[in-house]
Amino acid sequence: MESLSIVILGSGNVASHLAVALDKHHNVVQVFSRNIDNAHDLALRLKKCQSIDNLNLIFPDADLYLISVSDDAIKTIIPKMPHVYGIVAHTSGSVGLDVLGSCGIAQGVFYPLQTFSKKTHLDISKVPFFIEGSDISCYHRLKTLAKSISDYVYSADSAQRQSLHLAAVFACNFFNHMLVIASRILESNGYNIHVLEPLLKVTLQKAMLMSPAKAQTGPATRNDVSTISKHLERLDGYDRDIYSIISEAIMAEAKHNS
Amino acid sequence: MESLSIVILGSGNVASHLAVALDKHHNVVQVFSRNIDNAHDLALRLKKCQSIDNLNLIFPDADLYLISVSDDAIKTIIPKMPHVYGIVAHTSGSVGLDVLGSCGIAQGVFYPLQTFSKKTHLDISKVPFFIEGSDISCYHRLKTLAKSISDYVYSADSAQRQSLHLAAVFACNFFNHMLVIASRILESNGYNIHVLEPLLKVTLQKAMLMSPAKAQTGPATRNDVSTISKHLERLDGYDRDIYSIISEAIMAEAKHNS
Repeated sequence: MESLSIVILGSGNVASHLAVALDKHHNVVQVFSRNIDNAHDLALRLKKCQSIDNLNLIFPDADLYLISVSDDAIKTIIPKMPHVYGIVAHTSGSVGLDVLGSCGIAQGVFYPLQTFSKKTHLDISKVPFFIEGSDISCYHRLKTLAKSISDYVYSADSAQRQSLHLAAVFACNFFNHMLVIASRILESNGYNIHVLEPLLKVTLQKAMLMSPAKAQTGPATRNDVSTISKHLERLDGYDRDIYSIISEAIMAEAKHNS
Repeated sequence: MESLSIVILGSGNVASHLAVALDKHHNVVQVFSRNIDNAHDLALRLKKCQSIDNLNLIFPDADLYLISVSDDAIKTIIPKMPHVYGIVAHTSGSVGLDVLGSCGIAQGVFYPLQTFSKKTHLDISKVPFFIEGSDISCYHRLKTLAKSISDYVYSADSAQRQSLHLAAVFACNFFNHMLVIASRILESNGYNIHVLEPLLKVTLQKAMLMSPAKAQTGPATRNDVSTISKHLERLDGYDRDIYSIISEAIMAEAKHNS
């Protein structure tokens, strides 16, 4: 496997996890951050890496420039990028390839479908990566790079990637909000969210095994309007609106499938 | 540990899992079902058990009569129960203790907070049980019984149990509906729900480790209205209404916490 020289732009959660993973088989030669301390902290975790806070100090001859910053920051970095002789790629789910303009010799996307926290360890080999390239050679180089750190590598154009990101909002952020509400109900009754952990694990297992549509159970699926109205009486505000609309949707789904 | 003689009323998912688990340390002596074939199938999986489809054939001197049928069926069974000299308990999350009237020598609830399927194996020792008793001696007998099969046994009165059930609807059924939507989005883009599995596992881990409120991420938390409106453009029907109301709720939550 070819070892690439890589410049990482960013020092946040995604940048840190990717830099550490990539540095095992490749060489992360520079980390750029507007905050030099953050760049320095990340560089210290890598084999041999320079930390910089000035885009003009970027080495022009690395193989890859990986921009792993917030969606808005990508747009402000691109016009300030010096001329470079490698691939320029970003790691965002919701930003198109076109935002990279004609930066570098080719442009690509290297999107990991995962939620990253600095503190928690993550097995990057299980994270699915979605790859796009402005040309076939760029696509293959990024795909090979992703395969060097993950067992799950797919292709996705910008429209597909936006759909993946949208699906992830339901599966991650909205799932988590269901837990915020459940947690509030439990706490006001003297329990905590951990009593739901076995149920959550089995719910996830069943959805993966049977498909979520077939795995559905509960009052709305069996059109149990008496339980639904008892539940609604115990809720108010957004929690009540959310209970109501999701129950309606599940009832419509059940009707459609029967 | 005292070994109890138990009559199980019901032969569905919950009844089957409980009968098999209880029969290891106790004696399930009868299984009642309106459908004798179902009663028979379950009885065959137990040490020494009679199957019946007539409530008048119930042994009057068992220690416990465990009614594990649908919420509506509990109400139809109770008036038809013959006089018995043991505890009568049900296993429902959403039905009060009072539905059992003055059946048996005492009444109780034996509620497992889990989703059961006949086909999938389940480690019952990890299932949380919530116990209620019409008197302290009944409560202690049911608690001891629950501890003989599970490591997680709690007490819950009828109001608390209804709240647990409500929290479980958010955490199980509504979480699953988020996966139904995500799955639909993925499939129309050539992917399947399994690409989200690593993200789902980490989301669950983080919520348990940090609390769901602190673990929240995504466009709504960071008030990223541009991504939210791009997402809304890609949705319609209930999926769009659900995206919209949950995003509003998360934004309100973020504002409140900041």
